[in-house]
This record gives sequence, C-alpha cells and structure tokens, in this order.
Amino acid sequence: MIVILKPEASEALIKDITSQIEALGLQTHLSRGQFRTVIGVVGEEVKVDPEHLKAINGVEQVLPIMKPYKLASREFHKDDTVIEIKCPQGGSVKVGGVNCMAIAGPCAAEDEAMVHQLAKEVRAAGATVLRGGAYKPRTSPYSFQGHGEEALKWLRDAGHENNMPVITEVMDTRHVAVIERYTDIFQIGARNMQNFNLLFEVGKTRKPVVLKRGLAGSISEWLMSAEYVLSQGNREVILCERGIKTFEQSLRYTLDVSAVPVAKNLSHLPIIVDPSHAAGDRQYVPALARAGIAAGADGIMVECHDNPAKAMCDGPQALLPETFQKLMVELEGIAKILGRQFTKTPAAKNVPVSV
Amino acid sequence: MIVILKPEASEALIKDITSQIEALGLQTHLSRGQFRTVIGVVGEEVKVDPEHLKAINGVEQVLPIMKPYKLASREFHKDDTVIEIKCPQGGSVKVGGVNCMAIAGPCAAEDEAMVHQLAKEVRAAGATVLRGGAYKPRTSPYSFQGHGEEALKWLRDAGHENNMPVITEVMDTRHVAVIERYTDIFQIGARNMQNFNLLFEVGKTRKPVVLKRGLAGSISEWLMSAEYVLSQGNREVILCERGIKTFEQSLRYTLDVSAVPVAKNLSHLPIIVDPSHAAGDRQYVPALARAGIAAGADGIMVECHDNPAKAMCDGPQALLPETFQKLMVELEGIAKILGRQFTKTPAAKNVPVSV
Amino acid sequence: MIVILKPEASEALIKDITSQIEALGLQTHLSRGQFRTVIGVVGEEVKVDPEHLKAINGVEQVLPIMKPYKLASREFHKDDTVIEIKCPQGGSVKVGGVNCMAIAGPCAAEDEAMVHQLAKEVRAAGATVLRGGAYKPRTSPYSFQGHGEEALKWLRDAGHENNMPVITEVMDTRHVAVIERYTDIFQIGARNMQNFNLLFEVGKTRKPVVLKRGLAGSISEWLMSAEYVLSQGNREVILCERGIKTFEQSLRYTLDVSAVPVAKNLSHLPIIVDPSHAAGDRQYVPALARAGIAAGADGIMVECHDNPAKAMCDGPQALLPETFQKLMVELEGIAKILGRQFTKTPAAKNVPVSV
Amino acid sequence: MIVILKPEASEALIKDITSQIEALGLQTHLSRGQFRTVIGVVGEEVKVDPEHLKAINGVEQVLPIMKPYKLASREFHKDDTVIEIKCPQGGSVKVGGVNCMAIAGPCAAEDEAMVHQLAKEVRAAGATVLRGGAYKPRTSPYSFQGHGEEALKWLRDAGHENNMPVITEVMDTRHVAVIERYTDIFQIGARNMQNFNLLFEVGKTRKPVVLKRGLAGSISEWLMSAEYVLSQGNREVILCERGIKTFEQSLRYTLDVSAVPVAKNLSHLPIIVDPSHAAGDRQYVPALARAGIAAGADGIMVECHDNPAKAMCDGPQALLPETFQKLMVELEGIAKILGRQFTKTPAAKNVPVSV
Repeated sequence: MIVILKPEASEALIKDITSQIEALGLQTHLSRGQFRTVIGVVGEEVKVDPEHLKAINGVEQVLPIMKPYKLASREFHKDDTVIEIKCPQGGSVKVGGVNCMAIAGPCAAEDEAMVHQLAKEVRAAGATVLRGGAYKPRTSPYSFQGHGEEALKWLRDAGHENNMPVITEVMDTRHVAVIERYTDIFQIGARNMQNFNLLFEVGKTRKPVVLKRGLAGSISEWLMSAEYVLSQGNREVILCERGIKTFEQSLRYTLDVSAVPVAKNLSHLPIIVDPSHAAGDRQYVPALARAGIAAGADGIMVECHDNPAKAMCDGPQALLPETFQKLMVELEGIAKILGRQFTKTPAAKNVPVSV
Repeated sequence: MIVILKPEASEALIKDITSQIEALGLQTHLSRGQFRTVIGVVGEEVKVDPEHLKAINGVEQVLPIMKPYKLASREFHKDDTVIEIKCPQGGSVKVGGVNCMAIAGPCAAEDEAMVHQLAKEVRAAGATVLRGGAYKPRTSPYSFQGHGEEALKWLRDAGHENNMPVITEVMDTRHVAVIERYTDIFQIGARNMQNFNLLFEVGKTRKPVVLKRGLAGSISEWLMSAEYVLSQGNREVILCERGIKTFEQSLRYTLDVSAVPVAKNLSHLPIIVDPSHAAGDRQYVPALARAGIAAGADGIMVECHDNPAKAMCDGPQALLPETFQKLMVELEGIAKILGRQFTKTPAAKNVPVSV
Repeated sequence: MIVILKPEASEALIKDITSQIEALGLQTHLSRGQFRTVIGVVGEEVKVDPEHLKAINGVEQVLPIMKPYKLASREFHKDDTVIEIKCPQGGSVKVGGVNCMAIAGPCAAEDEAMVHQLAKEVRAAGATVLRGGAYKPRTSPYSFQGHGEEALKWLRDAGHENNMPVITEVMDTRHVAVIERYTDIFQIGARNMQNFNLLFEVGKTRKPVVLKRGLAGSISEWLMSAEYVLSQGNREVILCERGIKTFEQSLRYTLDVSAVPVAKNLSHLPIIVDPSHAAGDRQYVPALARAGIAAGADGIMVECHDNPAKAMCDGPQALLPETFQKLMVELEGIAKILGRQFTKTPAAKNVPVSV
Repeated sequence: MIVILKPEASEALIKDITSQIEALGLQTHLSRGQFRTVIGVVGEEVKVDPEHLKAINGVEQVLPIMKPYKLASREFHKDDTVIEIKCPQGGSVKVGGVNCMAIAGPCAAEDEAMVHQLAKEVRAAGATVLRGGAYKPRTSPYSFQGHGEEALKWLRDAGHENNMPVITEVMDTRHVAVIERYTDIFQIGARNMQNFNLLFEVGKTRKPVVLKRGLAGSISEWLMSAEYVLSQGNREVILCERGIKTFEQSLRYTLDVSAVPVAKNLSHLPIIVDPSHAAGDRQYVPALARAGIAAGADGIMVECHDNPAKAMCDGPQALLPETFQKLMVELEGIAKILGRQFTKTPAAKNVPVSV
C-alpha cells in the first residue's frame, strides 16, 4: 500500500501515521519527494484498512498495491480452475481450462410439458446444462414472479430425464435450502451480485455458483463478491458477464466483452457470457455469443423458447431451438480455433429420479 | 401503448396483433403511414405486457404511454405525500410538502457510548432522525459486518433518550422482524434497490421505508421498486438519491441531483439526498448537501463521527458534528428561500424506554 | 412521428398542434385514449422538427418513428455497401459485404525508417492498409503532437513501396487538403465524431472516411455524423467502433461489441473495430480483435511497433508484428466460419511514386 | 510517480528501469515489498512519460502522484482566479472569487430584432453577459446551422446597446478570427473539449474562453484541455459544467454537480454551470441552476426565448425571461448565504458602436 500525503503534511503527522502502521507489525518506507511525502507499506496489506488511513487529515491518497481479494486471485492460484458438475444419472460435465459449457433453457419454467420439451431440444442442439427460472426477479411487482417449488420439480425431472445438470436463480436467503434440494447449480442474478448475505449462504453449500456481474459492478467488485462465496469454503464459482449499464441504449445492456480476458487475467475462475440478457433482443444474441467465445469465455448461457411470443417472460430475447443449434456449430468452430472444446452431457440411462 | 410494425409487416400480422389486443378488452387504432403501420392501444395498458408484443416477429418497437408504476405515480396522486414519523417519547416529525428532514449519525453503531454521544451531538446540530448501521453491507467479506441486534438496542436507547426516530439498514428478509422491533424507519440500501423479496417484506410492515436508488437504477426502475413496497399496503416510502456509477471517478459516485426534480415530477413521494455516500469524502459533503436542498430535496442523510480516523467504516466521508452544524445553518437558509423548513425533533421528556 | 399530449391538454391545443402539422403538408391521426390524446403524423417526418413540438406547453413526449438519418440508413439501401480502395501502384482492396480488411501500423509515424520497416512487417503479417499518425490528438499540450507533413510523406512512400493504401487522422479543417494530397483514407478520430465542420470538409472530398465512434457517441448520433459526410456527396464511410466511456476502468475504454451488429442492422455501411485504443494494453488486443470479427465486423485497425517501450505514443497498446501475425491467423479462421474473408493487398510492382 | 513491478520482475529489469529514470536527472527510491517491488520517482515527474514506463514488459502499474496539468492546477496557484471582462461601452464584469456571473440569451441568434429584444430582457432580469449562437453544432446535417457572421453583428450590436459583453461558440479554427472581431468571450462547446487545435487557436487570442466539459470528459481531461489554452498564454479560462452522458436518460444529460467543488479544489479557475443543455427541458432548468450555485459555482449560463415553441433550436429548454428573472432572485439569495454575489453589468451610456 502506498500512502501519499498532502504537501502541507507535518512531521508530526508523518510520524503518527508510520507509527500506526508499524503497530500492526508492518514496515514503512518513507520517500520524501520534492512536492510530496510518500509512505510505502511493506508486508501484508490486508492488515491495514485503507479507509482508516484515508480518513486522516493530511492524507491525500491511499493506493493499494495488492488486490483486495485473495481466494479469487490468480496471483495465489496460477492455474485455471476447472469445475466438474455432476450429472443427475451419473457422469459429469466440466467448465474451465480447455472446457467450454453451454447452458440453455427457458427464462421461466412455465409448465411441466414445456420444460421437458425444451430440455430435450436444447440438449439435442448442444447444450450441456439446463436453465430455467422458478423464482423470477421482475422489475414490476405486477409481473409473473415464477412458479416456485413446483417449477423446481419440473426442472429436476427434466434434468434427470436428459442427464443434464440444472441451474436456477436464487434470490432470497430463505430459498437456498429448497433450491439446493432440487438443482445442481445456484445462479446469483445481476441484481444480487452484492446481496452479501445471499453470497454467504450459497458459500456455505457445496454446489457450484454462477455469479452474474451486477449492472454497475466493476470487475474488482465482482471478484470481491466471488470472494464472499469462496471465503465460506465453496470454491466452485463461475463468473458470468451479462452486460452493464452505459449511456448506449440501443440494446438493453452493453455486453462488456473485455471483462472476459480481464477477469481471466485477474482470476483463475471460469467465466461465461449471457448474451440473452445483455441484448434483450434475439436477433443480436448469436453475434454476442460468438464475441464472448472468441474473447476467451468458458461458455455461454442463453434463453430458448419454442414460441417466444407466448413466453411468460423475456420473450423478445428467446432463441428458437433451431437458431441455437446453428449458433452452437459456429461456437464450436471458434472454440476449436482457440484450442478449446464444448463439453457434452453424458448419455442418459433411463434411471428413475431418486427423490 | 403504441405498437410500431416493421415496414414488411403483412396484413395477416396486423390482423393477428390487433385481435390479440382486442381479446383483452382494449380498443386498437390503426394508422397506416407512408413507411410504417402503427397500432395505438386505447384503454388500460397494464393489461397488455409490452414484452409479449415485442416478441412477435414483425413488431419493431413497443412504446408504452403510461408509466409502469401506479401507486408511486403523481398522475394518480397529485399532492405531495407528507409522511409523519412517530418519535419514541411522543410527538412526530414530518417529511414532504414544505417539511425537510435531516437524518444524521454514525455509519456503523460502533459501541453504546459513541451512539449516545453522537445522537446528542447531531440532535443539537439540527438532525431530526438518528441513523446508525447494525448490519453493514461491505464490499469485502473480511471487513467489519456490523454488531447486529446489540447495535439495534444501542440505537433504540439513544433514539429514545433524545426522542429521535431511528433508521437502520435492512439487508436480509430474515432480519426484517428484529429490525422492526427496535427501530422506526427501514433503510433499503442502494445494492438492494432491486432485492424484490426484501421490498415485499418491508412493504408488509407499517413503518416508513427510505429506499435508496441503486448505483445503476434508472429513475423509472427506482419508482418501480417503490411500487413493490407500496403494492403491499405500506404507503410510506421516502426516496433517497445517493449517487450513481458513471465514468467520472474523482468521487466515489456521481450525485444525480437532477433526479430530485425529475422524481418529484413523476411521483408524489418525498425524496432526500445522501451526500456522504455519493462523495465518499467529507470535504465534498456540504456542497452536495446544499445542491440537493437547492434542487428541491425534502431532506438529507449524512454520516457524522467524532473521530473519523478511528471510524470502523466509511471514516473518510464522516463529518465532524461541528461541520454538520454549520451545514445545517446553510441548508435552513436555502430551504427558506424555497418556502420550506426543516422539521425539529420534539423535546425529550425523560420517559424510560418501554421494551 | 407520434405526439403524446399531457392529460390536461385542451381541445384548443390539440387543434393548434394538428393545424401546425397539417400546414406542412402532412396528415394527422388523432387517437383519444382514456388518459392521453395521441397525435400520429403521417407523411415525411423530416418536415417537422420534433424540437418544435416538444417545446409547446401541453406536449408530453414526441416519439419519432423514422430514423433521423437517411443516406446512412439500411431502410433506403438494403444491400451492404462495399467500398473499394485504390492501391498506390494499382489494384484495389475491398471492405464490406464478404470482405474484411486489416489496417495496421504505428500509432505515430516516428521517422522514415520505422515507417518503412513496419509497413513491410504488417503487410507480411496480413495487413491490407497501412496506418500512421502525422497529426496526433494528445490529452496533454506538452506531449508529442506528430511530425505533420513530413510524416505524411513517409507514409505515402511506405504505402507506395508496399502497394498499400494509407490512412491517417485528420483533426483540423485546415489540414484536409494536405492530407488528401498524400494519403488514401481519412480517419476521423473519436474526439472529432461531432466536429461537424470537419465532417463537412471530408464529405466534400472523394476519398473514403473511417469515422470513429465518439467516447460518448450513441450509435444513432454516430450514424448522424456519417450522414454529415454522406450528405456532401462522399458515400464512402467506414464506421469504426473503438470503445466508449463507462464506469468500468480496468481498461482504458469499454469496447461496445454490440455496436457491430446493431450498426449493421441500422446501416449498410461497413464497420470495423479498433481493439488497440479500446484496450490501451497490448495483452488484451487479440481477444478484443477476435470478439469484433466474431460479432460480424468488417475488419480491424491495430497499432504495431517493433519496440513498444520506445514508442513516442501509446506504447502500452502496440502489438509486436509477430503477435499481429498470429492474431491474423485466428481472425481469418473466425471470418471463414462466418462466410467472410480478409482481402489481401495486391502485389507491389516497383513503380516509383509519382508526386 | 510510482512504478509497480510485476511479481516476476527480474533484477535486470529493475536495474534497467531505474537507470532509464535516473538518466533523466531524477532520483529513484526502491522499495522491495513481500510481493512486489516498487520504484518511487523523486523530482519533476513531468520529465518521464508514464506511457513509456507502462509499455515495458514487467511493469504492472504506473501511478502518477503529480497532476498532469500545471497552469490549471491550484497546487501552483493557490488563490481563485478572478477574470475581469471588459464591457463594450466601458467598465467590466468579474467572475471568480466572490463574484458570480449570469450569462443568458437565445440558443441561436435568429434575427436582429429578437437578439436586441432578448438582450434587453435578460439584462433587466439580472444577466451579466449576453449569449447567442452564430455557428451552431447540430446533430443533424439537415438542421439549421446558424446565421454566421451576420448573427455576430447582431450580437455585437445588442451587446453594445446594453453594455453587455457577448459570448458565442467557436467550432472551427477557421472562424476564430472573425468571432474574435465581434465578440468578447469564446465558447468552446462540449463536443470540442478535445478539439486540440481549436484550443491552441483560442489560446493564442487574449479573450476569455468558456470551456465546456465534454460529454465524456473526466474532470482531469477537462483541466488538461484548459491547460491547452493556458499553455498558449491565455490565462482567462472559465470552466463550464453542462452535463455528462450516463445511463440515466430521463433528461438529456446528467448534470455532474460534484464537478463544481472537485474542479474548484483541483484548480483556481472559475467554474459555471449550464443547466439548460444539461436538462434539455425548461421545467428542470431552475432546480439545476440553484443546485449549481449552492454547490459553489461562479455563475450560470442559461438559454432564454420569448416564444420557445418558435425557437429555431433547443426550444424545449428555453426559459421565458420572466422565469429567468424569478430564478435570479433565488440564485442571489443562495449566493448570499455562501458569501457570494452576482456582478451587475455597468450602465450603458448610449455611445455608438465603433466598428
């Protein structure tokens, strides 16, 4: 950490700050410039709260050198984390390293039949994991809010039938237990990236967590949110870039494709992109999905629907399964150029669901 | 609602869409332009989900005419809402209409003595309501997370002693009940503006809610979040602008002072500003507080501390009580120019706390 | 155009507005909703200035249906524009349609030898067009501002030697003539996207113009800037996405990769991406270049340097020629998947420069 | 300047960098931390280009300690700059220090009569300086572009008649001379904040320059643009905050009111706000003007019109003169609370214009 003092900082202040820092078992390194005095802090930065130093009169700036996250940082974990997700009937799928993963399914699990139908279709088209919403975050209190536990059962059964792991969004600390019972991966939505208690709760489980980036979340804040989960002992966090808020309003959000290589440089965690929510309009989903994989993402998450105009939510962004299939061919081609490949879901064996 | 079709939209599509809309008991109005056909929808828009229409091939744009919120809208509630908050020992304080309110106190309730000390000081300086954090949302999982229920007791007692209503942040649906027991106003933080389940829960209580704007929350989304609370029967929502994320990084956030008159035009709810979190640096807090009141805000919320360099959180932005006092004099002057006045907390009578 | 009136709009106002519009030879279409009256305007919208209508008391909103640009719009020009750029020694290179183009070279033309050296290297690595700065826009008045006309000569000669068309940035209306004399393509930088007089001047020439998107330029404003050039009779505009300003600051700018398919949908003009200025850091340039091509861009523009640490400007973002070569292989692979190909510069024949 | 090396930085690299820096006559200060080596640079930073150091492999970050601007910086010029602007018939008006200034007039100088009429009205209402556009930057090439030199004459005459200094926008280096001939203050518009050649040209004149902040201009970049003007010997720069681009789109731009105290802290130059362009809607102009003055601005610039619905540009944001008058009363009240006052234009004496 580097502490830059104001030009008028007195000797007494310099002494006071250095002794505060040294009292924490750290060393200080004084550098008196022509215009400013600078204090370098040597040792484990994490012991000093930069806020404390910034709050002192006479301190102009405090510049951390170390990242504020540790478990999420590539600095202490050089190799890519590869996460292995168990499939309902046996076998597993991988994400990270050379492995890419395609998550697909409806925005909301609308009824039992549609979930089963779509699961079959997206699997055939190349999806690895089945998605579907049971508890839906909706901007309006008057909109459809999801079918809750019943939808979880439909998803569990459809996932089982196709031997696909299932992912669904968790929005409330009170729902963690029920969602854990039925599904294989937790999704933390963009609006909950800094719902810290929720992060702690999924961190206490031992199921992978897809952590979406918040609409105003910097990459550093996002990795701090991953750190919340990791700090509880759950090391299976998959980052998901899904668009940020900017002045450009031609699409719903701006997919920050640079976040893919930047997050990969800072962290060892896998990162996927969600082009559906970023675009909010199906005609742009394939281009954004391709951009994500070309930038080095470890997978995509897309919404599909057989009849988007009848979808209970987010119809405008849902791909038809046939468009998704065509997209998967392009994505596999791009992945191959970069030395990657999409993992396939292992075959289903007709084993019944064990409840 | 206005539905704009693509140039190539067929007669069959036009017929299909109009009959879908009319089936909902609404009227349609067809306007064939030189380049586009436009369908106007007459009646209660709320019956048609714009998403459904947007998801139809051949539809270019769907433009709602009515706001998506109702209870929060000034259209159906012309007069300013004035919220009356009961004081612990009797009497009340008002916010809205001609009444301004100053909320002040420490970022976190650090210990019993400091809470009592600061409560007395901020009251003397002109604060109406006492703030203090018991459950703290922190970017890092390794930072101090608040003293929980114990801090709630300190706040309750200090509020009682000074006859000041108390506000604290609620972050988790599981904490609503305990916070309701000890305090007078719920605060929903910026990171939880779209924590919809939490909004529903505080909406079911009958205590006022200060709803902070999210860091990426548009004014319209913010009012939709207010609608979540209002829709549950709790009509006492106070909006709070506290800065948004923009490219400008010289301060922590960008206080969107325009949000004050815009929200006041769209909604009847009171709106206050929080210059402390917007600035993140105490030297800028007074200027932003004055700007907020000059723009027509119904009050401010500021953080104070007797020794900012020792504060357990957000020290850099804490005002010394004497600076806050000086600021209150300026704010009262500005309010007067605009025909407003800051409400005063009624006198404390030495009645003991009834637990 | 659709004019939405305030609920309280009187009959007199309605009459006044409709007669104003009809006086312009347009038809109006009145739709009286339950809450609002809406006036539809039928005919050539361009005749009514939405600002005039918005300025009338009683008007709530004015919604244009037609795009404000015409020559740039795909609506009136369905096919992709393919621009053919003449090479100094004969032949040409194409951009648009199935053709992709790679522009490469140094940030600034630093001296004659380096320009010739780099031109040879980037051509060998697959570049189609040579770039180099002669007049440099620099944030600081104390930074190197470019070698001016002398640099233009170096570029002209190096382009000639390798039979590569040359592009350089024009920043001042007073430089249009001299730059036109030496180079083949004008570049309008991000900071000049709305330097309207400059746009008019390059619009009066008959050389292609690469128009970079401004750091705060919406896609619609960008196309309006293209319209400035097109309106003067120069139909050869190539759009260039190079990153926008957002709250995310881990890289210099945020490459808005969605702008590629969105601009392609709205306009027939070719669009390329500039990953070098977007990233500001060479380690991220390849990922962003690949993302751009995968999203459907018609080419890239990148900065190269043989010794980035000695570069006179933007060293941190310069690729080594060997990295650029490796990147071109990946880009050609991705282009092929999408049915595209990079155009090659025709062979140089050793014809001397004709001054 | 502080240079942070990557963990893997070798001794050879450290030696190489330090010797490069020392060769410039500066001292280095090595600090070997547990995880990183940090090189502190002591002396005049301006001699080392941070870009050069950042471009070296093995360098992780380069943190400047000094601001990149000098003449604009408060560090080397502690007192507020007070600019005195000469009035056409004698006397002067001041801005900066305790002096506030109100600039008002039409968006565009539409015809001779309206300019004279409005000049009289805004002066009566409290305006100090007359504004009016002769060359208009318009988003569309098909919009009215201003009456050019003829409009400059109208403005000159109306300014003379009322003894008010006149300000108009300059957009093109080729117009500097003609505008200098007729008017008293140059305005650099937001879109030209980084039109560096234009900044150099107005820097060579000896007339005050109002420099608007760009729509994506950080405060630091804005001060660098001021430095361009100052570096040419023109020390009379007045900053003008007029709104930035953010995700919030309820108004045209987001007035960054924090920029007022931040720029005042970093720089000694006066700063005014332009609430008209920020809001784009007259109903919000008074609230934003008040916020600006309350935040400490040295003045405002507003657009007025007698018949906004007939205005040739920006009608929706034009105040009626009577609204402006009412606003001035409020602003004077707020200024007084802060120990400031609005300067008044000295009386006109009926001296004829000397051409």
